[in-house]
Amino acid sequence: MEKFRLHILGCGSALPTSVHNPSAQVLNIREKLYMIDCGEGTQLQFRKSKLKFSRLTSVFISHMHGDHCFGLVGIISTMALLGRTADINVFLPKDGEEIVRAQLDYFCRDIPFNVNLVTFDGGEERMIFEDNSITVTTVPLKHRIACCGFLFREKQGLRHINREMCDFYGIPAFMIGKIKNGEDFVTEDGETVANERITFPPDPVRSYAYCSDTIYMPELEKQLKGIDLLYHEATFCNEDVKRAKETYHTTSGEAAALALKAEVKKLLIGHFSARYTDSNLLLRECRSIFRNTVAATEGLTVDI
Amino acid sequence: MEKFRLHILGCGSALPTSVHNPSAQVLNIREKLYMIDCGEGTQLQFRKSKLKFSRLTSVFISHMHGDHCFGLVGIISTMALLGRTADINVFLPKDGEEIVRAQLDYFCRDIPFNVNLVTFDGGEERMIFEDNSITVTTVPLKHRIACCGFLFREKQGLRHINREMCDFYGIPAFMIGKIKNGEDFVTEDGETVANERITFPPDPVRSYAYCSDTIYMPELEKQLKGIDLLYHEATFCNEDVKRAKETYHTTSGEAAALALKAEVKKLLIGHFSARYTDSNLLLRECRSIFRNTVAATEGLTVDI
Repeated sequence: MEKFRLHILGCGSALPTSVHNPSAQVLNIREKLYMIDCGEGTQLQFRKSKLKFSRLTSVFISHMHGDHCFGLVGIISTMALLGRTADINVFLPKDGEEIVRAQLDYFCRDIPFNVNLVTFDGGEERMIFEDNSITVTTVPLKHRIACCGFLFREKQGLRHINREMCDFYGIPAFMIGKIKNGEDFVTEDGETVANERITFPPDPVRSYAYCSDTIYMPELEKQLKGIDLLYHEATFCNEDVKRAKETYHTTSGEAAALALKAEVKKLLIGHFSARYTDSNLLLRECRSIFRNTVAATEGLTVDI
Repeated sequence: MEKFRLHILGCGSALPTSVHNPSAQVLNIREKLYMIDCGEGTQLQFRKSKLKFSRLTSVFISHMHGDHCFGLVGIISTMALLGRTADINVFLPKDGEEIVRAQLDYFCRDIPFNVNLVTFDGGEERMIFEDNSITVTTVPLKHRIACCGFLFREKQGLRHINREMCDFYGIPAFMIGKIKNGEDFVTEDGETVANERITFPPDPVRSYAYCSDTIYMPELEKQLKGIDLLYHEATFCNEDVKRAKETYHTTSGEAAALALKAEVKKLLIGHFSARYTDSNLLLRECRSIFRNTVAATEGLTVDI
């Protein structure tokens, strides 16, 4: 299977601590890097994770709170200093366009590549990006300001050749591409060989959703149904549910309840409040509801 | 002697590395904190240094390159989250006012304190700040954009009472304040006792200058004459003098030459280029010219 790996660069909430950096993640899909959120200090975390700036193609900003975007202009400046020439896409909520553009105009006037700001209205499910490998769809969230998550879904890959059967039917090399694409094969005698007889199914399509920051939204069940990995904020523990509601955040129990309803394969929790010195309490609360839960931590990688 | 302590939070140059953070320092003068420059990640470095946000009164930004100011809005946001209500002063070059104000307006709309932006023209020596303890004067530098250093100078303190002599002359308690201020004492017999006979001199006035970023400017000798501590950038080693000139930076040898000419008591070098994996080469080059040199490093404190 080709690479589909999540790197956690930061999983704290608004107050950075000596334990957690603010929100930032990188998804490595077949050696192309997609960044999700970019809090202050993300560029340093990126370096520590031994990721390559040159492979970063797009950045997705969930919302315009500082702990999710204060590192954006810094990482762009650094890539310019490192000699980058390839353009980069920055997807962000439309209310963030003006201030980000103002900063780029001021601090990144003369950089040798374009920053394509692409704004979206995160209030509805909408595909905002696609390339050869994936699609990215917004996941509408409810926070104190406009905010959305992102659902990354692999595109269906090609079918795999059944070498033995292809040899049996004497299929010529120039046909292989078409057959991987699903075409049947017609022999010289006019016999049609069904594609399923000469190929194996493609790799299963993998999916990852990032949901932060948001109040508990059980209705996300529908959009997230059956995905492989769900990163969901669990800013507070169950006991602090009142505080979670007030600040439009989620508790660990609520995050786990959503994972259970949506039948996701694995839950990864993060965006931990600075009040918790370690995440074990939150993790235990999740696991009592949804067993396959992992707590994010800086430097963690998860292969999907 | 009262506290006059410098904390190094970051002493790298434009490219943050796993070794160095971008420029930021804190001067602790009698438990009031003055920040100088505020690169990305400064708030985390501040916490690591166990400094108290509530004691931070003013921030001085030397110039508007990102590695000297990208952490400013983040640290202000964090102080707001921590419940700060006291106003804070931010001194910055006038060309930075608009973009910083735009960011504060966007990200810090509802914070419970005022950020007083005070702009200056760093092209001339001018006192831009004073309080009970110190004055701060700009040090004109030459960089690719408007840039200046800062000279922190203690105000003359009060004279110290010579307890023995005061007892001998029977000086009453209510006179002590005036005598500390330098007044002579007149006995009941009308005899004038010179202040010098009943007091000791005040503590010596201490001074610290921050000079970064700049091309080598031997003419700074005059303004920096005899100061206690000079922080001067030494971005490059002697061999890279051409690169230093091109980028308006200083070599280690040049920083040391200035320290020698200005007869400063101690030189602290920093703003090291990411190309040097350790600062020992730069330090050796300085010490061969000016022996009392120290290389900055994150977490270093220097008592003046």
